[in-house]
Amino acid sequence: MTDPADAIRAAAARYSNWGRWGDDDVHGTLNFLTPRHRINGAALVRRGVAFSLAQRFDMDGPQRGWRRRTNPVHTMLDTGVDAERGNQGFPHGFGGADDVVAMPLQCSTQWDGLGHIFDHGKAWNGRAAGDVVTSEGDRVTGIETAAGLIAGRGVLLDAGRALGDDGELPDGFAITTAHLEQTIAAQGATSAVGTGDIVLVRTGQLARTRREGWGSYAGGPAPGLSFGTAGWLHDTEIAAIATDTWGFEVRPNEFDDAFQPLHQVVIPHLGLYIGEMWDLDALAEDCAADGVHEFWLTAGPIPVTGAVGAPVNPIAVK
Amino acid sequence: MTDPADAIRAAAARYSNWGRWGDDDVHGTLNFLTPRHRINGAALVRRGVAFSLAQRFDMDGPQRGWRRRTNPVHTMLDTGVDAERGNQGFPHGFGGADDVVAMPLQCSTQWDGLGHIFDHGKAWNGRAAGDVVTSEGDRVTGIETAAGLIAGRGVLLDAGRALGDDGELPDGFAITTAHLEQTIAAQGATSAVGTGDIVLVRTGQLARTRREGWGSYAGGPAPGLSFGTAGWLHDTEIAAIATDTWGFEVRPNEFDDAFQPLHQVVIPHLGLYIGEMWDLDALAEDCAADGVHEFWLTAGPIPVTGAVGAPVNPIAVK
Amino acid sequence: MTDPADAIRAAAARYSNWGRWGDDDVHGTLNFLTPRHRINGAALVRRGVAFSLAQRFDMDGPQRGWRRRTNPVHTMLDTGVDAERGNQGFPHGFGGADDVVAMPLQCSTQWDGLGHIFDHGKAWNGRAAGDVVTSEGDRVTGIETAAGLIAGRGVLLDAGRALGDDGELPDGFAITTAHLEQTIAAQGATSAVGTGDIVLVRTGQLARTRREGWGSYAGGPAPGLSFGTAGWLHDTEIAAIATDTWGFEVRPNEFDDAFQPLHQVVIPHLGLYIGEMWDLDALAEDCAADGVHEFWLTAGPIPVTGAVGAPVNPIAVK
Amino acid sequence: MTDPADAIRAAAARYSNWGRWGDDDVHGTLNFLTPRHRINGAALVRRGVAFSLAQRFDMDGPQRGWRRRTNPVHTMLDTGVDAERGNQGFPHGFGGADDVVAMPLQCSTQWDGLGHIFDHGKAWNGRAAGDVVTSEGDRVTGIETAAGLIAGRGVLLDAGRALGDDGELPDGFAITTAHLEQTIAAQGATSAVGTGDIVLVRTGQLARTRREGWGSYAGGPAPGLSFGTAGWLHDTEIAAIATDTWGFEVRPNEFDDAFQPLHQVVIPHLGLYIGEMWDLDALAEDCAADGVHEFWLTAGPIPVTGAVGAPVNPIAVK
Repeated sequence: MTDPADAIRAAAARYSNWGRWGDDDVHGTLNFLTPRHRINGAALVRRGVAFSLAQRFDMDGPQRGWRRRTNPVHTMLDTGVDAERGNQGFPHGFGGADDVVAMPLQCSTQWDGLGHIFDHGKAWNGRAAGDVVTSEGDRVTGIETAAGLIAGRGVLLDAGRALGDDGELPDGFAITTAHLEQTIAAQGATSAVGTGDIVLVRTGQLARTRREGWGSYAGGPAPGLSFGTAGWLHDTEIAAIATDTWGFEVRPNEFDDAFQPLHQVVIPHLGLYIGEMWDLDALAEDCAADGVHEFWLTAGPIPVTGAVGAPVNPIAVK
Repeated sequence: MTDPADAIRAAAARYSNWGRWGDDDVHGTLNFLTPRHRINGAALVRRGVAFSLAQRFDMDGPQRGWRRRTNPVHTMLDTGVDAERGNQGFPHGFGGADDVVAMPLQCSTQWDGLGHIFDHGKAWNGRAAGDVVTSEGDRVTGIETAAGLIAGRGVLLDAGRALGDDGELPDGFAITTAHLEQTIAAQGATSAVGTGDIVLVRTGQLARTRREGWGSYAGGPAPGLSFGTAGWLHDTEIAAIATDTWGFEVRPNEFDDAFQPLHQVVIPHLGLYIGEMWDLDALAEDCAADGVHEFWLTAGPIPVTGAVGAPVNPIAVK
Repeated sequence: MTDPADAIRAAAARYSNWGRWGDDDVHGTLNFLTPRHRINGAALVRRGVAFSLAQRFDMDGPQRGWRRRTNPVHTMLDTGVDAERGNQGFPHGFGGADDVVAMPLQCSTQWDGLGHIFDHGKAWNGRAAGDVVTSEGDRVTGIETAAGLIAGRGVLLDAGRALGDDGELPDGFAITTAHLEQTIAAQGATSAVGTGDIVLVRTGQLARTRREGWGSYAGGPAPGLSFGTAGWLHDTEIAAIATDTWGFEVRPNEFDDAFQPLHQVVIPHLGLYIGEMWDLDALAEDCAADGVHEFWLTAGPIPVTGAVGAPVNPIAVK
Repeated sequence: MTDPADAIRAAAARYSNWGRWGDDDVHGTLNFLTPRHRINGAALVRRGVAFSLAQRFDMDGPQRGWRRRTNPVHTMLDTGVDAERGNQGFPHGFGGADDVVAMPLQCSTQWDGLGHIFDHGKAWNGRAAGDVVTSEGDRVTGIETAAGLIAGRGVLLDAGRALGDDGELPDGFAITTAHLEQTIAAQGATSAVGTGDIVLVRTGQLARTRREGWGSYAGGPAPGLSFGTAGWLHDTEIAAIATDTWGFEVRPNEFDDAFQPLHQVVIPHLGLYIGEMWDLDALAEDCAADGVHEFWLTAGPIPVTGAVGAPVNPIAVK
């Protein structure tokens, strides 16, 4: 495809949710997730097994400095070695360790907030980008607005297992709507996707990077959603979606000279919450083993006020 | 009380869990929380209402520089203002915002890891503190070891409401075992505490700081657990406990010249997970209204590798 | 004075240096400092005594979180305690310590860059502020452009000693042009100020904060230059000026409802380099003792690319 | 060479300066630099031309995450774009830009402090490493102790030009004492090295990395001083030395399984100040052109309290 601008314009016009939940809305597709969905989701806890879907936050992550994104730098303010040596000046044998972190908010497992991406200077719900995200952060749709909302039914679509070799899709593989439906069909009834669901798409790339390293840059070639899935993402009325890749959509993108065109449609126009760099491997193993691809999922972002994205430790319970 | 060293020694000896889950254990009291407890916990979702128990992470927090702890500094790498002005160099009208944070891992709503506190150079399970937490972080019991475990039944003990005026305990109020039991009795059957539970003790201090500001330092006077609750914390076999205060235990501490003596017993000796600065106010309102003080609680820390504490966005669902 | 907007407009019109050094100029008043001035400046080294004019960079500094400015947070990546204990994994008895810092670039002794302040959306030399400083930093007049320029003749005007009690001006004291001239006269011939000089104005406030602490905020009341000195700053053709205070000009400012009006004239319109929070006390003692108020001064900012201000360790040698 | 431990032991014994300046000394070889040397150094200013010897501090630097060292992350708190758009809330048309940085203190042009390296748990002057550098930083020889000292005569030894092809030594080239003497001889009388001098050794590697990039890691192969220069470094009584490379000494090191053995001798035993990643190229061009290799050099580190190394913007004036 050679004209991303046109394709984006057409998709945005067709699938826009602007105004759907009122002019003041800051939640976008999270509006689809209601108490009723939570009640149904909690009923999916049958065996009581829990899975963290977060990657570890450390220097082994995928960031290589692009646009000033580094891996998290974790340093200690106090240590056990100091405590043991008696350096700390506390009374009665008390010793402590303490630490700090400096990190991009989207360095590892994370949610994109609705202020993360703009289309021609417009943010979610038609607002001017400059009215929303200034140097002081997102003053309207900051990630803290989603702090208590993202808990409901999760569905794993293990595209890597359904469509790939050895459970992995190759880099550059564009997952189309047909592929998603094929995955659902292959997995069976527990992976039906509907209103208010939180959909997790596993490509298997993370398993590969774990084995082979991230290479020169995580934003390089990767499997991911095709631009053409915008309609499916809209029509299914899902509340949110996450992948095990750096960038959610296929890399390189499907247009010449493009940068994340699907983001440009689904974040500002659909108001869709996107998760990236989730670790779905252990959950996928379990789902493959018991044939159940739905579960209770809690994934509240750390509410950094005004953030346009934030770390999250998503917990799936089956 | 004037001899914290003796009191700590006696409590540590009496309530130690060292070896209880094997020499290699890194989970401490989280071992009490089993799949069975998760199944029971999830069954508490009846109305589908969710509550984030995280404070906002921003410059309005309680840190004032003590021991190099600041409030989180959130800065933007890209903004909507830039996107709108066309400064960013992306193709086809794409615009983005991105951000970073620098923060102490225990600056706001958080879990203490088992490597956070030592007693006379000993860490959880009897390990030498210097073998556990070096300048590279906690190499044994880092917070990432708890990433997928903390999801189960939560119980709110609203001591502020049960014992205080207008829902708040005064600063310096030591919550004793009798107070905890009195709170449970006042609240009724849904607040019974037992093995594997995650107990949330609300003092009301956070509501006060919200109204009056944090003052010169959050480590100042505050209500909190009495040193004497160590036995209750041990005998109930709870998996974890959290408060709405900076420091969990009463401030000033109950001994002359002491520093967090209850920490010194319950972290290294019980292996107890402690949460601090949780925002329990909205949940407490709801519990007071419907009389149900138990709920499904998910509270996985952000798994910063080797961290001795970490931010968490705990989600309670009723 | 009640109309800062008018006063700023008039001063800007009268003292503007826009275009003086060409349309492409990025150096502003540093253009006044030529090799000839350096040759003369070096001749002032007579006794070989050197003075660092930098405050210490640590948590005892003046920042209290205003506009996300904290004191510098310095943390260790490796320590001597670890090295001694043999935790580090290096061969042949090698041990190391290493460290990081997170800090506002203007948290302590610093230069304001020319991109630091704007007047009605205009930056130095008439450029649009949005063309100069984006989220990627100052792309035109970043502090790195001054990296090798600031070395020349320094002159200390010890207004605290000349005009104050016990060497200190009271907070709120506005230093006028007459005061500057009075100080020069009192100090004698070595403090004549002319083209290309780097002028250091000591108020004595730092000595006071050292004794009494910074209080609730360093941006509070302080002695400093009067708005009326804009003409002197322009006509003397000095290359740069620095004070021992947080904000260079008098605080509170001399207009109702104003914020740093002198900055608004001298940075964007004169192109003047301003230093703040310099520690002039030891140098001032020496100057008072030997009666010589001129010296060789080197004060190159740390060249953080695109920074609008930067830390500096100015070294005066007499 | 196969036994670094023995070689280090022998060199340390032979060249130790422990006790030379008293038991309490914290300045090491900076003691050699006296007021007399400053007077002589300032006399070298003849043409008034100044050179910053600092690399730019930005994401293009050499750090790739080894031991948690990243390049500096510079972010904006306020921008000109915001000011122009009127987002900032200041009165009378005032606008501002402000910024922060998070960086390892040794990420770019820098001084190693005396607490940076230990030999078998011993720091400079024979102190126990654990008594010197804890998690709170270097409590004895922190870089702030050198804040006002490093101003004197600088000498450039352009080994790259004297010994290499096209002004560059190849990676892995060990510069021996003979090479240093050969360079001095080739350059002529202005490069004689003696007591109190600050010696700058240019290898030319920086010019190469500027042309070809830093590659996978700056700690990789590089020209640098041979282990055998320890005697020369001691006997010349120089005050400090700096190179244009990441690690001062030749990489790979000259022993099997070694890590920076020359550091292990000269920092803790000689008390020698070492500068790394200095940009000597422009100065070297000038020295080659006029044949004068001596100059007035000011290089005070940013005095981060307790730091074991710190950024510096060294200024040479000829």
